[in-house]
Amino acid sequence: MDEDRLKKMSCNIPIFLTGLCFLLLRPTCCSGSRILVVPVYASHWINMEVILRELHSRGHSITVLRSGESSYIPANSSFYTSIDMKPMMDESDNNYYNHLLLAVMECRRSLTFLRSFCQQYIITSIMANGHMFLANITATMLDDPVFMKKLHDAKFDLMLTDPAMPIGVLLGSYLKLPMVFNVRWINTGEGHSTIAPSPVSYVPVSGSELHDQMTFLERTMNMLFYLYSVVQQHFFINPAYSDLCQRHFPPGTDLLSLQRAADIWLLRADFVFEFPRPTMPNVVYIGGFQCKKARPLPDELEAFMQSSGDHGVVVMSLGTLVSALPHEVTEAIAAAFAQLPQKVVWKFVGEIPSSLGNNTLLVHWLPQNDLLGHPKTRAFVAHGGTNGMYEAIYHGVPVLGLPLLFDQFDNLLRMKVRGAARVVEVVSLTKENFLEALKDILETPSYRENIQRLSQLHHDQPMSPMDTAIFWIEYVLRNKGAAHLKSAGFHLPWYSYFSVDVAALIMALVGAFVWASVLVCRFLCCRSSRRKMKAE
Amino acid sequence: MDEDRLKKMSCNIPIFLTGLCFLLLRPTCCSGSRILVVPVYASHWINMEVILRELHSRGHSITVLRSGESSYIPANSSFYTSIDMKPMMDESDNNYYNHLLLAVMECRRSLTFLRSFCQQYIITSIMANGHMFLANITATMLDDPVFMKKLHDAKFDLMLTDPAMPIGVLLGSYLKLPMVFNVRWINTGEGHSTIAPSPVSYVPVSGSELHDQMTFLERTMNMLFYLYSVVQQHFFINPAYSDLCQRHFPPGTDLLSLQRAADIWLLRADFVFEFPRPTMPNVVYIGGFQCKKARPLPDELEAFMQSSGDHGVVVMSLGTLVSALPHEVTEAIAAAFAQLPQKVVWKFVGEIPSSLGNNTLLVHWLPQNDLLGHPKTRAFVAHGGTNGMYEAIYHGVPVLGLPLLFDQFDNLLRMKVRGAARVVEVVSLTKENFLEALKDILETPSYRENIQRLSQLHHDQPMSPMDTAIFWIEYVLRNKGAAHLKSAGFHLPWYSYFSVDVAALIMALVGAFVWASVLVCRFLCCRSSRRKMKAE
Repeated sequence: MDEDRLKKMSCNIPIFLTGLCFLLLRPTCCSGSRILVVPVYASHWINMEVILRELHSRGHSITVLRSGESSYIPANSSFYTSIDMKPMMDESDNNYYNHLLLAVMECRRSLTFLRSFCQQYIITSIMANGHMFLANITATMLDDPVFMKKLHDAKFDLMLTDPAMPIGVLLGSYLKLPMVFNVRWINTGEGHSTIAPSPVSYVPVSGSELHDQMTFLERTMNMLFYLYSVVQQHFFINPAYSDLCQRHFPPGTDLLSLQRAADIWLLRADFVFEFPRPTMPNVVYIGGFQCKKARPLPDELEAFMQSSGDHGVVVMSLGTLVSALPHEVTEAIAAAFAQLPQKVVWKFVGEIPSSLGNNTLLVHWLPQNDLLGHPKTRAFVAHGGTNGMYEAIYHGVPVLGLPLLFDQFDNLLRMKVRGAARVVEVVSLTKENFLEALKDILETPSYRENIQRLSQLHHDQPMSPMDTAIFWIEYVLRNKGAAHLKSAGFHLPWYSYFSVDVAALIMALVGAFVWASVLVCRFLCCRSSRRKMKAE
Repeated sequence: MDEDRLKKMSCNIPIFLTGLCFLLLRPTCCSGSRILVVPVYASHWINMEVILRELHSRGHSITVLRSGESSYIPANSSFYTSIDMKPMMDESDNNYYNHLLLAVMECRRSLTFLRSFCQQYIITSIMANGHMFLANITATMLDDPVFMKKLHDAKFDLMLTDPAMPIGVLLGSYLKLPMVFNVRWINTGEGHSTIAPSPVSYVPVSGSELHDQMTFLERTMNMLFYLYSVVQQHFFINPAYSDLCQRHFPPGTDLLSLQRAADIWLLRADFVFEFPRPTMPNVVYIGGFQCKKARPLPDELEAFMQSSGDHGVVVMSLGTLVSALPHEVTEAIAAAFAQLPQKVVWKFVGEIPSSLGNNTLLVHWLPQNDLLGHPKTRAFVAHGGTNGMYEAIYHGVPVLGLPLLFDQFDNLLRMKVRGAARVVEVVSLTKENFLEALKDILETPSYRENIQRLSQLHHDQPMSPMDTAIFWIEYVLRNKGAAHLKSAGFHLPWYSYFSVDVAALIMALVGAFVWASVLVCRFLCCRSSRRKMKAE
């Protein structure tokens, strides 16, 4: 395909040349900027790390504020220096997420609509504690004059953070740094009033498992989800930071107002995957920026791939958080795999299923991007994490989804409505329905055609998502912020933002006018009837 | 400055190389696509023409549907073939716009808020007739089977049009072509429900002369403007096309629904100039795409520029539509110019003012972009047309605005709030206030500093606006549309779009719940009081 593209290059020469001139002559950002980074662990770190490597290669100096003893984010690195903060929970403790999975699985047994609410409730209850803990860590830093002086004296030029955990948002605001957020979405609470307007009539609230074309009932559900997210934000999240905000920021500051201070939101989304929705000038879409061409596999794995012949290989991975599915589920999956003519590579931790077939290779870790880009790969059995979904799109591999937690249900819904995935619920998974879905994915050409169409559209961008991300980070560095791209709407109270006050005034005026007209009419009618009576 | 940039290039090499690879390897669009273009005349044609030249240079075949005997759009061209439609008004008839100017000047004598409404009213009354005429021209074509067969048989791949006149929108929809709109905004009517959500609390309605930070009273005015634009759309514009839509399109089609079919909106805006506002994934910003580096001036003009010494030159041009200001105004302007140490180049038609100074050169036509990019140019006296404003930003020249018609008031307001312009109303222009404003612009450094900052930001884009425009036109050609970027919200009726139906249901349910609770409480209270009475 690449040769084909190169052949076609000749007709692309003029735009190539003007593009070249533009790249050469546009304002440049000299290396040596000092960037403070507050990342989030697990898959969020994978995203942040690739950006940091790129920034480092461009000569910027990176300082990462990491949880002490973090197992995901190493203290020593060739491309950043690190500062430790108070240790958080043991991030590698998969038991926590395994337990969470069991709770969510209970929710999945409820009715369609109730289960999403049930999941949100579970997440809220975890989140309230989590935010208290994060506020506590941040307060410890802000209250430590020696630590804060160290940060001040380092004269950082930018805060780059993932606001899924707001430590970076708070620190960046406190240090008055220009801020760039690398974010999937404000998963919980009011992205509506921090990132971009999100009319509930066609923008499904995160976690609602709805899509952009909703029936009246679905729109009602979406509105309830939205109202729930407002309650969640104002009664469970904001209060965790209220004491901190009161002590360290000007009056009236809350977490939302600090989030709104972001100069640029680098959103890990692409409209090939995401439903079209309103956006703002300071929101930049970089979905799939971490994807890259497949590198050669280790010899042993390559040999296994080749041994699959024309049937090809199914790749299965459920990400980093949940280490093990319930045993009866893995037994059913293994039994289904055993009946396939394909070979299977399965990233697996836990008790080995007795029904495992000879065609299935269990591994503790797999080079997911390289496997998905391998010509023998026919399908991807995945939990629906954002990184995996973009890798599937990048390489054009259809997906069988087993959503487990968080945004995975929403992600897989997006792939499903585009005809690029099927979804099997873990709570109702049997050998039979898993095998049927998998065979459908493998044998019906439309899944492959659809995801390859998505892949083609995803590659058809004026700049690579990674270049886009780096451009906008350096844009904020060059221009010391991007104030002119920030919406004036976010400074309004909600009743002004939604024009409730204006509507009330106009309705009152119209009401008063109608009332006065009725009074005048009545008065005139009475007078004329009195005159008539007199005349009679 | 360019040498400086080239020197800094070394630290830009990695992004340059990846950018280069991306440009080479991205999907290419082979030349030879057939593009049908329905442009609008005057300054709109200037915009369209530069895009057409670029498309032609990339091997596309362009067919322009022009008004017969158009004085702006030549029938014979080296880069397009043309098809004539029924002649429209004589586009070069400046008298029409001169009369319109007098009517608008009457409005400008009203109170601040009333004058914008007055102008909108004048525009509505013109527009209603104009749209009847345009509908009539379109109907003539659609009713002509020979003409339509010719268009059908030409097998166009794309409709590129400026929807300020909807002929292209109607024809493109009828021919079922993918559509790209090259547009300033839907100046009148509901851009809100065709381009992007426009919350009235911080998005000033076009023509309102409001900015994005509004007081309660201004927000109320903006709401009234919005309601007026809805009335305008549904009672003055849509009805002009209702017969046509009924005869040639499926039931329920109106002009708005056809406009929503656009695959990509190329918006002639940049947020360096425009207030930050919600946007959608299929809206692409190309503000300033027509600007280019200044070319050398004709010898005579260059000699005049050089003769200004260190004082430099003031450039004045009021665009193409209005040929002449009232004589007393030109006298005042000429007298003010005569008192400047600067030289003046004035694009002038009409009776030569008696107060004209020796420092002022009157010309019938001037190379505006080249003059604005000349190092001797110190200020630009302009009517505030969009093209001129972007040229001023591109070259970093401060503006003294004399707004005359249409969006010029809004445009100059944007420049003014950014500290890059002063505005003088033509109706209250005197030699003294014009001279004071001009001296302020020339002598206060902040105007130049501010517009040079805007200029710097405007140049700081990942791709040139022209490359962006071409990329997205070819994107639609390559992918035969861009359906996945279109909002699902636009298909909803207004009460669903604004969630009025959902809010009504939820309020009714809450009301019913409260009412039932009160009834139950009453019942329980009565029972307990009855028991008490019995007990007593």
